[in-house]
Amino acid sequence: MSEAPALPTFADVEAAATRLKGLAHHTPVASSRTLDERLGARVFLKCENLQRAGAFKFRGAANALLQLDPATRERGVLAFSSGNHAQAIALAARLLGSKATVVMPTDAPAAKRRATEGYGARVVPYDPATENREEIARAIAERERPALIPPYDHPHVIAGAGTAACELIDEVGALDLLLVPCGGGGLLSGSSLSARALAPACRVVGVEPEAGDDANRSFRSKTLHTVHNPRTIADGARTPSLGKLTFPLVMANVDDMATASDAQLVEAMRFVWERMKLVVEPTGVLGLAAALAGTVPVRGLRVGVILSGGNVDLADAGRLFATA
Amino acid sequence: MSEAPALPTFADVEAAATRLKGLAHHTPVASSRTLDERLGARVFLKCENLQRAGAFKFRGAANALLQLDPATRERGVLAFSSGNHAQAIALAARLLGSKATVVMPTDAPAAKRRATEGYGARVVPYDPATENREEIARAIAERERPALIPPYDHPHVIAGAGTAACELIDEVGALDLLLVPCGGGGLLSGSSLSARALAPACRVVGVEPEAGDDANRSFRSKTLHTVHNPRTIADGARTPSLGKLTFPLVMANVDDMATASDAQLVEAMRFVWERMKLVVEPTGVLGLAAALAGTVPVRGLRVGVILSGGNVDLADAGRLFATA
Repeated sequence: MSEAPALPTFADVEAAATRLKGLAHHTPVASSRTLDERLGARVFLKCENLQRAGAFKFRGAANALLQLDPATRERGVLAFSSGNHAQAIALAARLLGSKATVVMPTDAPAAKRRATEGYGARVVPYDPATENREEIARAIAERERPALIPPYDHPHVIAGAGTAACELIDEVGALDLLLVPCGGGGLLSGSSLSARALAPACRVVGVEPEAGDDANRSFRSKTLHTVHNPRTIADGARTPSLGKLTFPLVMANVDDMATASDAQLVEAMRFVWERMKLVVEPTGVLGLAAALAGTVPVRGLRVGVILSGGNVDLADAGRLFATA
Repeated sequence: MSEAPALPTFADVEAAATRLKGLAHHTPVASSRTLDERLGARVFLKCENLQRAGAFKFRGAANALLQLDPATRERGVLAFSSGNHAQAIALAARLLGSKATVVMPTDAPAAKRRATEGYGARVVPYDPATENREEIARAIAERERPALIPPYDHPHVIAGAGTAACELIDEVGALDLLLVPCGGGGLLSGSSLSARALAPACRVVGVEPEAGDDANRSFRSKTLHTVHNPRTIADGARTPSLGKLTFPLVMANVDDMATASDAQLVEAMRFVWERMKLVVEPTGVLGLAAALAGTVPVRGLRVGVILSGGNVDLADAGRLFATA
């Protein structure tokens, strides 16, 4: 077993921000008087659904790609993902003159595969029932020697993800509370580095789906818990556990963890879509859902909320709104 | 028959812009590299879906309310609408210390009624099959003497609507082409005043639903045509004809008219929702749909497109996306 690399610091986030300038979008911050009145708070929504490829993931993917030596970048990068990381890697590789291979389960939604291929990546499908992902990876690795870029547990990916909170606090000033979606913990770890450095009094709270509360349990018990294949509409947060880097970073820098139910996610989505006219995916509203449901108290506070992504099947979302 | 008031001019649009400062949102201009590549053009989308109450209508409603004398404003305003004008009047009245009465058919969607009441208006429902709208209006008028604010055929409403194109051209500079949704022609008339004054070489093209092409026919024949209850998903453009003010303004200042089919509207919506993460209603994408379908040639041009509104039932929209 190889040792985990050193934990990233805020200096790495700052370096990532410089590196990403002109490549990643400086996404807008949205606010809503109706939301503020309803919550009795001042809420700033960082719109990573408007990031390139539709999610914050582009920041980490591009930051990692930019630190590959030219020969490696030339050989290409490899990722395992059927979600936002796949599209982020595909677009970052295209923009940076590399090439991406994405290994994706055969049961991934066709739209996700099309989007990833649309950004120019080669998609290698595998049947999770009969094939071994590691063997596929090994075969590709031996043949092409690409750089593997994991979706969250990588210092460059975490540092890149942290640049969103950095931009948010730079733009709106100090916050009392920052609410961040949590799947594998990359966005949460990176955000907490920025908050600790730029707004030391700011409480950082990670929010994950109720059905996949591994990070909540890990946080409270201080030992890593795992939840496999949680049943939740927040598909970006179905990761089984925090990682070797994200777990210690969460323990060191995050103040609390919370959860949101699927019904609360739909209500938060409805608010953002209907009132703010922004398309955001279920995972993207984890933080806002916890505030709207009252799970995390926000009254009287200046609250930052990261809307992490907006990649969602529109017909599926319509069905969520119809039945809720 | 009373004579129609004098046609508004660009000076009225400028005065409206001053009047609306700090009250109406200065909405953002969105763009998309993917869209520009697909069309071979530089496209600037003016996001009136992000306007207060979710549509450009707030500009005209507020501009009209602001020009009522204090005693009239105190007595309140009256509108007939089940759509965006209803919500715009309701919100403008609340913000400006007036009170709004909105006469709405009983078969209007419950969500529209709730939204209008949510902004503090009194909704008076009437059954279009058995009741006469004019009689209801006369009764209210005799009792309360409110100011009637029509949805488009009013100089203050037109001047207010024109401020959106004014902001767009101020922000992005001269345009070669401006695409504007057309229902009753208020937004189109107002936009054409701004374009004529600020970008004299800019062609202004109004786009209406294929099934309700009264303005296209009126424009070509130079006589007013009417289409009653056209079957189209563009509910904001089901108005039967241009008005006494908007028809001459369109004839004087608009360069051409075009149409978009419902299928083209869904495709344009899909692009804006899926790729740009913005919720926009069918009527709101009329201009973009004509560009994407190639009905109006845009290659090589700097194109302004007004996304007029974003008020749409999310479940209904989901069904459009599922079946298209």
